[in-house]
Amino acid sequence: MKMTMFDKTVYIERRRKLVQELGSGIIVLMGNEESSMNYRDNCYSFRQDSTFLYYVGINKPGLVLVLNIDEGTETLFGNDLSLDDIIWTGAMPSISELAALSGIGHTKQSNSLEQFFKSKENSGQRIHILPPYRPENVLKLKSWLHVPVAKLQEFVSVPLIKAIVKQREIKEQAEIEEIEKAVNISADMHLAAMRHTRPGMKEYEVLAKVQEAALAANAGVSYPVILTINGQILHNHYYGNTIQEGNMILCDAGAENAMCYAGDLTRTFPAGKSFTSEQKEIYQAVLDSIQHAASLLKPGVQFREVHRQSAVKLLEGLKQTGLVTGDAEEAVELGVHTLFFQCGLGHMMGLDVHDMEDLGEEYVGYTDAIKRNTSFGWKSLRLAKELQPGFVLTVEPGVYIIPELLNRWKAENKLASFVNYNKLTAMQSFSGVRIEDNYVITDNGYRKLGKDLPTTIKEVESFRAAQF
Amino acid sequence: MKMTMFDKTVYIERRRKLVQELGSGIIVLMGNEESSMNYRDNCYSFRQDSTFLYYVGINKPGLVLVLNIDEGTETLFGNDLSLDDIIWTGAMPSISELAALSGIGHTKQSNSLEQFFKSKENSGQRIHILPPYRPENVLKLKSWLHVPVAKLQEFVSVPLIKAIVKQREIKEQAEIEEIEKAVNISADMHLAAMRHTRPGMKEYEVLAKVQEAALAANAGVSYPVILTINGQILHNHYYGNTIQEGNMILCDAGAENAMCYAGDLTRTFPAGKSFTSEQKEIYQAVLDSIQHAASLLKPGVQFREVHRQSAVKLLEGLKQTGLVTGDAEEAVELGVHTLFFQCGLGHMMGLDVHDMEDLGEEYVGYTDAIKRNTSFGWKSLRLAKELQPGFVLTVEPGVYIIPELLNRWKAENKLASFVNYNKLTAMQSFSGVRIEDNYVITDNGYRKLGKDLPTTIKEVESFRAAQF
Repeated sequence: MKMTMFDKTVYIERRRKLVQELGSGIIVLMGNEESSMNYRDNCYSFRQDSTFLYYVGINKPGLVLVLNIDEGTETLFGNDLSLDDIIWTGAMPSISELAALSGIGHTKQSNSLEQFFKSKENSGQRIHILPPYRPENVLKLKSWLHVPVAKLQEFVSVPLIKAIVKQREIKEQAEIEEIEKAVNISADMHLAAMRHTRPGMKEYEVLAKVQEAALAANAGVSYPVILTINGQILHNHYYGNTIQEGNMILCDAGAENAMCYAGDLTRTFPAGKSFTSEQKEIYQAVLDSIQHAASLLKPGVQFREVHRQSAVKLLEGLKQTGLVTGDAEEAVELGVHTLFFQCGLGHMMGLDVHDMEDLGEEYVGYTDAIKRNTSFGWKSLRLAKELQPGFVLTVEPGVYIIPELLNRWKAENKLASFVNYNKLTAMQSFSGVRIEDNYVITDNGYRKLGKDLPTTIKEVESFRAAQF
Repeated sequence: MKMTMFDKTVYIERRRKLVQELGSGIIVLMGNEESSMNYRDNCYSFRQDSTFLYYVGINKPGLVLVLNIDEGTETLFGNDLSLDDIIWTGAMPSISELAALSGIGHTKQSNSLEQFFKSKENSGQRIHILPPYRPENVLKLKSWLHVPVAKLQEFVSVPLIKAIVKQREIKEQAEIEEIEKAVNISADMHLAAMRHTRPGMKEYEVLAKVQEAALAANAGVSYPVILTINGQILHNHYYGNTIQEGNMILCDAGAENAMCYAGDLTRTFPAGKSFTSEQKEIYQAVLDSIQHAASLLKPGVQFREVHRQSAVKLLEGLKQTGLVTGDAEEAVELGVHTLFFQCGLGHMMGLDVHDMEDLGEEYVGYTDAIKRNTSFGWKSLRLAKELQPGFVLTVEPGVYIIPELLNRWKAENKLASFVNYNKLTAMQSFSGVRIEDNYVITDNGYRKLGKDLPTTIKEVESFRAAQF
């Protein structure tokens, strides 16, 4: 087993800051276990917990880190392999060797965790845990803490969550370099899609080329690839359609590199050499929207305002097509854009593609002062708060013509003074367009991460034409 | 969402047989849920439970089938999507529509399961469950049955396990056709590896081609691919080594086709155009072993005897190389072969690559009369019992020079009259050779499934030479 880690000084310093921020108590960081597919020993590709990776760096199942702030100790719990195990797995580092890689002073075998928690039961020390999203960790914590599942919530520590978010949301220079590697591999995945797509192919045949590009770079995917002629279905992991001339392919794909950092890019391109004129009009509206949104990125700006302005720009573009009318600012105020753009403009990105989503978007994307707007469309915005240097995020506006939503609005005659329902109904099989890039917030603006992909209509069409 | 299913009459008949075999009580078959990677909503590719697939066929998360044998009812529990959900996922069939595809008469929403189990608590009806291998199903069953995790075992029904094994182990004709599709895709994965491997490449670059071949055929992998220059490490999912002239590549890869049936093939081939003479000698011993083992396959033969004979053949081959001496039959009796061949000759294959492994090898591979031999080597044999027409299984002998094991035996001077430790120590970086094919037991023999891959030394070397 080989692992890619930063130098141990990085993890020592991260833990030092965390402990200092929290001040007291016992922090328990659960590593992940293997996840079974169809029987216990047939497992998915292992994915370590991202917070565990951030503070420990060890990409191996079955570990728990305990930081006893009050006593000033750090202990890594795990199991050493027996000689019998080693026959099957080859030589593996011991828990002490692993701990040393991360600069952790103490180690214990996993079976002592029960005793450890028992010894803390009446100690008066607060135990800080994170919300468990893997059911095996729910089962373990429940057993160690001697509480029913519903009571685990009482150990979930908002101060711990806030301290972690405060650290992880500001990416270190070395992290930005890793993210940029992942974004570059992601770009290669998109180039593969744009190179290999031909009318007559199945979506899964293009998917094969996209995933090959990630694997060939020693990377995985940071989320299940979306590759579809039905870009209007936002949660779409079906790949069985035949691609036809006149279709657009929406490819939303990102790599996870060897250090487990994510990229997350989207391009929409014609199945053939060129877009139809209708596709061009909508595509241009989305392109104008992402370009405008990116131009707004800088420290101090609230991302909800970037989202709002991206929606205004989108409606201004759609006005050109005759799909909407009226004042775009007023239309966004009333929610007209949500008929076309139902989701949020973007999200944090790092060790998770939706960075720290398991810790709660109310902490990652919002603050005590900036609360979620729960109206349709706005409620799906994952990031609203003020940007800071070191934030890494996605910007991903889109236009999605969703027949079920359109029919509902049309039946209600909703916002009919802004929406041309006749024209829209004629376009209900249009599908969807999204363009997505990744950015780091700098001291006075932003930098787009990774190499450039074909993005303008001209760039996309000339790239596609060159493949035929 | 589109699904590939057999006609509903297939599932109706399978359930009818199961219910008839079991006779009374309530059968609860848990479908699988989505499995989270690094946060709740970022999920691995969904894998349905295989027993659920066998009796229901619906490849969708969050379902539970309840067969109330005493009342003669079948009920599918699941959740219908709201109109809000459909905006994100596109139109999805309702639970009743899904149930109809499988010929199931009743449906209920998932939130009524708690009430359902409560209503059965004092009914005197026995509740039959299978051993849960997914922790989310442990949590659900525990909550419904109001028992601690340790007590769930009391609901695990050996009669249910035995009834299911009895059905699933005899593959229907339509299943054999699906398995053969999976084996053919698996063969294409191996052809990709044998075509693309060049000295100087990283293992993961070849892996990318292997996985591409599966995806391009609308398939996944039935288990994590092994593709390595260190074939002696049996549980090896590291792909970071550079392939060098003189290495052998051991590729153990199988596809899971659209109906979720598995293939499982292994080939070992030279990184360059040809094997070294030492590699040829060992390879030939393994090849003779698999050919002999396959020739023994027929109804009525115990697979543990096939395993034994494959080991004898292996040692006879190794005698030619001077690594072992003495009578091969006697040597196998004493366990000499386990220095080279530490695992079992093969296993059942179907909807799981190790078919029904979650139900317990003591039922799938053994019987009340044929119990597991717990000595080293033999204890890893997954299948021992008498073969029947319709069994589908793998045959996969190998030679693995494992330095840790060799050093232990050498230090003990173990079975030194049979083993040439001097010669073997000089070969300790040899790595490993495995050859694996898939077979169906016919009425009077066997049939190898799928198209032929290069297998003899001559075939492998001429295939490899043609790539340069």
